[in-house]
Amino acid sequence: MPGGLLTDLYELNMAASYLRHGRNRTAVFSLFVRHMPKDRGFLVAAGLADCLEFLERFSLEEADLAYLAETQGYGPDVLEALGRLRFTGDVWAVPEGHVVFAGEPLLEVTAPIAEAQLVETVLLNHITFQTSVATKAARCVLAAGPARLVDFAFRRTQGIEAALAVARASAIAGFAATSNVEAARRYGLTAAGTMAHSFIEAFPDEEEAFTTFAADFPGRTTFLVDTYDTLGGVRAAIAVARRLRLPGPIAVRLDSGDLAELSRATRRLLDEHGFTDAQIFASGGLDEYAIADLVAAGAPIDAFGVGTKVGVSADAPYLDSAYKLVVYAGRPVMKLSAGKVTAPGAKQIFRGEHDDLVGLRDEPAPPGRRLLLRPVMLSGRRVAPPEPLSVPRERCAADLARLPPEARALRGPTPPPVRETPRLAALAERVRREVCRAAGITTRATRR
Amino acid sequence: MPGGLLTDLYELNMAASYLRHGRNRTAVFSLFVRHMPKDRGFLVAAGLADCLEFLERFSLEEADLAYLAETQGYGPDVLEALGRLRFTGDVWAVPEGHVVFAGEPLLEVTAPIAEAQLVETVLLNHITFQTSVATKAARCVLAAGPARLVDFAFRRTQGIEAALAVARASAIAGFAATSNVEAARRYGLTAAGTMAHSFIEAFPDEEEAFTTFAADFPGRTTFLVDTYDTLGGVRAAIAVARRLRLPGPIAVRLDSGDLAELSRATRRLLDEHGFTDAQIFASGGLDEYAIADLVAAGAPIDAFGVGTKVGVSADAPYLDSAYKLVVYAGRPVMKLSAGKVTAPGAKQIFRGEHDDLVGLRDEPAPPGRRLLLRPVMLSGRRVAPPEPLSVPRERCAADLARLPPEARALRGPTPPPVRETPRLAALAERVRREVCRAAGITTRATRR
Repeated sequence: MPGGLLTDLYELNMAASYLRHGRNRTAVFSLFVRHMPKDRGFLVAAGLADCLEFLERFSLEEADLAYLAETQGYGPDVLEALGRLRFTGDVWAVPEGHVVFAGEPLLEVTAPIAEAQLVETVLLNHITFQTSVATKAARCVLAAGPARLVDFAFRRTQGIEAALAVARASAIAGFAATSNVEAARRYGLTAAGTMAHSFIEAFPDEEEAFTTFAADFPGRTTFLVDTYDTLGGVRAAIAVARRLRLPGPIAVRLDSGDLAELSRATRRLLDEHGFTDAQIFASGGLDEYAIADLVAAGAPIDAFGVGTKVGVSADAPYLDSAYKLVVYAGRPVMKLSAGKVTAPGAKQIFRGEHDDLVGLRDEPAPPGRRLLLRPVMLSGRRVAPPEPLSVPRERCAADLARLPPEARALRGPTPPPVRETPRLAALAERVRREVCRAAGITTRATRR
Repeated sequence: MPGGLLTDLYELNMAASYLRHGRNRTAVFSLFVRHMPKDRGFLVAAGLADCLEFLERFSLEEADLAYLAETQGYGPDVLEALGRLRFTGDVWAVPEGHVVFAGEPLLEVTAPIAEAQLVETVLLNHITFQTSVATKAARCVLAAGPARLVDFAFRRTQGIEAALAVARASAIAGFAATSNVEAARRYGLTAAGTMAHSFIEAFPDEEEAFTTFAADFPGRTTFLVDTYDTLGGVRAAIAVARRLRLPGPIAVRLDSGDLAELSRATRRLLDEHGFTDAQIFASGGLDEYAIADLVAAGAPIDAFGVGTKVGVSADAPYLDSAYKLVVYAGRPVMKLSAGKVTAPGAKQIFRGEHDDLVGLRDEPAPPGRRLLLRPVMLSGRRVAPPEPLSVPRERCAADLARLPPEARALRGPTPPPVRETPRLAALAERVRREVCRAAGITTRATRR
């Protein structure tokens, strides 16, 4: 997809004005989440890979410029300058898979302001969406304990591209497989899936449907048992598996009804008939809350298929993310709009054992703390090739394991403290005073 | 994007089985929303255009087949049959922009079952997502009354493709413009946008920023006034407009704070200084509820920018949609899974003045009722070229105007009644008995 017009019009208007007046000096923009959504004790960073791919390809084509000339009346000088634009800046970012919190920069862009401004919309889009989904998926992983998770979201995401991104984000969060075949191919994931109710209905009866399917996929047969009556379906699956002497362990999928009760009854039936290695797969409107309830009820479920509610992060379908100018032409800046104050300066996250400090990028790291933001693009070029998905996946598992219980809680969690370093706090106070003086504001509530 | 692997694995497994056994007879699948989400009294149908484009191009390429051979072990006979597949079926659908309700088919596919099954995932995806967003956007249109609406969702949708679809769906629902430049170009919409807070901050002070911007865009200057202090910003905008003697009417954008109070104070300031034709534009976390509150408070706002909450349909981020087999090889079928019962047979919606009837496609239309489902694709070919966006837009405006007040209500609405025709009810009862008999179920709760 061409990159140049994938932006909000105001970005182009501002870029046009900057270019026209030769005001295209270096800016630093910081992308962060202002507040944690309800019931979120952590976020899982995701979306950076798509951001870098976008930045590498960014340019306005002839057709883009012609459209702008016709509809926006930009002059030839501006159009020529827009046509020459590429992304030539630096990007520092939190690598995908890391756990982060509100107020921490996920990504910072340092570039001539016209470039940095034009890419805002797409960077915010990828990071906001993919971080919200990776977070939701990680909560399911925490809820499921040892049970495996499979991404079933394709049919309910916001389009095809979204379905691919959801499969990838949930793999980063620790999902074992996806039903999305194109995503499996593209990202090297395991594709998983069995049959739908329609398959059963296309046969005169359930047992004939099961027999046909098992003969076609003998080593890995999962029977969908709830089309007519769940326990009747389990009995039919057992009968077919016996008759065909299937080589591999079978599985049954429960997709409706009281999953706790049905899974227990199904387990009993399977065990009574000697299918002690048969697995029980559950699906149907599940999310981390439902999974946690099933786990708490001792439901003997080996794997969960989760779709819709993870695919749209149903209980927190967006993050309050922002991309804010923090430095222009070497001058730290900040915004004082009601409820939307931003801290100035290029930043760094200093992660400790029990808390995070957000400070200035160029201040020395406090002892014993890790730096979370790393340079990922310099002068418009990646510093390294794209990571294989196993890398952010391991990063996420390690960070989730280190999270304190109060941050992992599904309901009413408390994220670890995130505080400013004294240097950042002092800079923010100095800039606030300067801004107020320049704007002629004499009194002003304190910053936060 | 290639089409063949854009599906859930189980669709391919089922198709493989059907093809292998020569069981690829004609099926009818019905796509509908089971239940209205909370606070939805109507839905606006959208997503059909993308469905038809997908169906027209559907095929599995060599690389798709190689991937399936390697990872799924499909045999050469199945791979060859999959490689020959194209979508050759018929599609009947509710045209985009029409108001519909739960239980009504939005789209029905009649095709050899392998084809009909393979396209399920993408059809459900487009219709579910775009219908949910068009519905949310239409609620904003109803709330805003005469005020104009602008789509600001690009930065918070689930990816780029989603942002384009949201711009289109909100245009169908009646939005006046979009900030998304690529969407504006692609769909012939009006692009709208002004400046961001970063623009103001990149200048020594607000007045210099305003002066530069107004000189660049003299005929259509909208000043963003809340970077430091909203009413101070309005005064600066007035000063700049006077000094530069701007030719067109100006506008100011309020993006934070108490929008009702600030819009009234802004209106007074503008009027006192003779800018009675200046417009007030409001944005910042708005949705239909916030817009309705502002309208009820008499806030003098001329246009609303709405983004995030419409872009993800925040209070109802998905629809409980389904794509269910209703006929196979001439035999009406239905599913009896707990809470997921489906009515058999190819259907039609008969719309009356005050209610809808859902009946069988081949039964005579009850007198005085309109047929909502129309053939849009026959034997894999569209019956007409894609509609210009003005057509679904007018359809939506007309249908919204006819909605009763209790269905238009933003909170606790009541949709008009949707009932089954006696013929559909009789068929459902007959098929239910047959299915129960075949499955050996003797007692069963009634269908709904």
